[in-house]
Amino acid sequence: MALSDEGTATGRVPGIADLDTPCLLLDEGRLTRNVAAMRARLDGFGVAFRPHLKTAKSLDVARLAMASPAGPAMVSTLREAEYFAQGGVRDMIYGVGIAPSKLDRVGAIRAAGADLALILDSVAQADAVAAWSRGHADRLPALIEVDADGHRSGVAPGDGALLAEIGRRLVEGGAELRGVLLHAGDSYGLSDPGAIARAAEAEREAAVTAAGILRAAGLPCPVVSVGSTPTARFAQGLAGVTEVRAGVFMFGDLFQAGVGSVGIADIALSVLASVIGHQRQKGWIIVDAGWMALSRDRGTARQAVDQGYGIVCDATGRPYPDLIVADANQEHGIVALRPGATAALPDLALGARIRILPNHACATGAQHDRYHVLDGAGEVHAVWPRIRGW
Amino acid sequence: MALSDEGTATGRVPGIADLDTPCLLLDEGRLTRNVAAMRARLDGFGVAFRPHLKTAKSLDVARLAMASPAGPAMVSTLREAEYFAQGGVRDMIYGVGIAPSKLDRVGAIRAAGADLALILDSVAQADAVAAWSRGHADRLPALIEVDADGHRSGVAPGDGALLAEIGRRLVEGGAELRGVLLHAGDSYGLSDPGAIARAAEAEREAAVTAAGILRAAGLPCPVVSVGSTPTARFAQGLAGVTEVRAGVFMFGDLFQAGVGSVGIADIALSVLASVIGHQRQKGWIIVDAGWMALSRDRGTARQAVDQGYGIVCDATGRPYPDLIVADANQEHGIVALRPGATAALPDLALGARIRILPNHACATGAQHDRYHVLDGAGEVHAVWPRIRGW
Repeated sequence: MALSDEGTATGRVPGIADLDTPCLLLDEGRLTRNVAAMRARLDGFGVAFRPHLKTAKSLDVARLAMASPAGPAMVSTLREAEYFAQGGVRDMIYGVGIAPSKLDRVGAIRAAGADLALILDSVAQADAVAAWSRGHADRLPALIEVDADGHRSGVAPGDGALLAEIGRRLVEGGAELRGVLLHAGDSYGLSDPGAIARAAEAEREAAVTAAGILRAAGLPCPVVSVGSTPTARFAQGLAGVTEVRAGVFMFGDLFQAGVGSVGIADIALSVLASVIGHQRQKGWIIVDAGWMALSRDRGTARQAVDQGYGIVCDATGRPYPDLIVADANQEHGIVALRPGATAALPDLALGARIRILPNHACATGAQHDRYHVLDGAGEVHAVWPRIRGW
Repeated sequence: MALSDEGTATGRVPGIADLDTPCLLLDEGRLTRNVAAMRARLDGFGVAFRPHLKTAKSLDVARLAMASPAGPAMVSTLREAEYFAQGGVRDMIYGVGIAPSKLDRVGAIRAAGADLALILDSVAQADAVAAWSRGHADRLPALIEVDADGHRSGVAPGDGALLAEIGRRLVEGGAELRGVLLHAGDSYGLSDPGAIARAAEAEREAAVTAAGILRAAGLPCPVVSVGSTPTARFAQGLAGVTEVRAGVFMFGDLFQAGVGSVGIADIALSVLASVIGHQRQKGWIIVDAGWMALSRDRGTARQAVDQGYGIVCDATGRPYPDLIVADANQEHGIVALRPGATAALPDLALGARIRILPNHACATGAQHDRYHVLDGAGEVHAVWPRIRGW
């Protein structure tokens, strides 16, 4: 099958029985429903939706998720920004704190027509962005990253002196202050809708506080951007917020199911694998999807239900009771019943095909170059390429 | 820079200061020394060396590791087999139990001139391989996988009835019985050279036992293949073995350093990253290498010394005392001193470059499309592409 390097698929589409294993399957119906539900939810709050494309890394998926072919969208690498810009996306935020050495690439993407904005959380970054702006006659737009919950980067929301100083350096130095951006990453550690709603409210309040500080200092703050899949799913109010970002919800995964952000029946992504052996006395079925196909992500190990390297389903996507990928080597998955299971091990012959629901859609997707897209009948009706790298 | 899709690099080579981060660095001197040491060790035992190319996935690296440009070599996917065959490798074993649906691809690789052998551990596989051989006038060579230590696949070495039955089905069915193959994967859980030497002896003894059973049944067993990086490093005798396989030793990694198979100063692979922020009150330095660049592999978490997501070095590769990637998000690494450290956090400014030694070379390498190859002066002198997929 011919795949264009950086576009959508062309050529013959194989049937699911013809696919080489392991490979990645994407249930388009579930994807579309997940996106529609999120869009309806955020429409109800009157806020814009900026899908994070770091999970999908695919223009075909992006076009289903974005409000328009031009965006808005969020990206995690400049490679994504370049790829999506070539595909017509015009409104993007690069959501990783900017390093000065990356500004020339940012400028090139902008010069080609995309409005790519940056994030930063230090005076040093603001000065570098302002200096680049002056030197290149392009007022780079930047959002100040604010730390909602201490999990990673960002200015403390109450540190008004630093917020205003960063903002002033940008504006007076010749760049553009576009707003504030937060990501409530600690919500990933929760599993109770009420607790996630409180995390969403803390994220919202920190965002509005930071925006208020900038505005009180006479600085602009048109964008107030928050988001994570859990807080987007359970926020009860978004007053003062202008946009919400989320990405992994599109596909869902077992980790987000453990958090409660998605249901297992909503998970759109799976890995198709073949049985390649048995160790019957141990209750093991060996399959050709190891950690290279599933990723090394074991995020559910820290949750109430440890899903191993994933839940095992039949070829149509129906989970077998209590059957998981209990362990994985590079190209081998060891399928077994979970500890304490009362179900019987299914009789899967050599060559039988299974589907594995992943712990983490971002990590599992990244191990593959393409999606085999399933229609409502479970047949492959398209192949969508995905990108990688930086 | 122009990179051919499936060959060696062409065009301009960037200096290390010009590289976009994150990216993968390969110290060619260390690689060459690691290979030379393994080759000298195995030469001393009078056994052939079949490098496993699943870590490298690069023709440039393969040519340094193999005894000749034609091999022998070991691969973990048919994609690797196709790629290396196109690059002139003629003697390969595909080291994952064969699924019948893959035999047509195996046949195509063989028809193009490469002697690609299979492994299997069941009568059902032997019958499928024999049937394919009869149907295509190509006697597919197969090795019987024997289970040295119960860690994954393979026939129990003392199960003479099953070994002989598989062998007979192959030979009488029209395929070729090429020998037996073992992988002492449980040696990865050890850390004492004496214990690893005992694991190597158990692997050797199981191999020789299985080969003896086949020969006693009047069946051929020309190849007796064993190997893993730890057992290849510490085996004290290899009588009856014809070849040894190992792969990750070429690059080394922190997991193998924890096992004792390599020294930290031998690790040839690292990820170059840039500082993108600070959380000074927490003692955190934020860098642009997260788990996407480092992989989700946390293998050292189960060892005596947990290296987080990797040891942090300066741009020349010298480790900072007690500095590790303590946590990682998709595109963010959180660099911090390890718990209990007495060293001071180094003062790394915005934009400063670091190198991160990985937990697992196979997993980290797989996140990247190319190696930036360092010469003895620490300068990039070549870019070598690497492949992925199945």
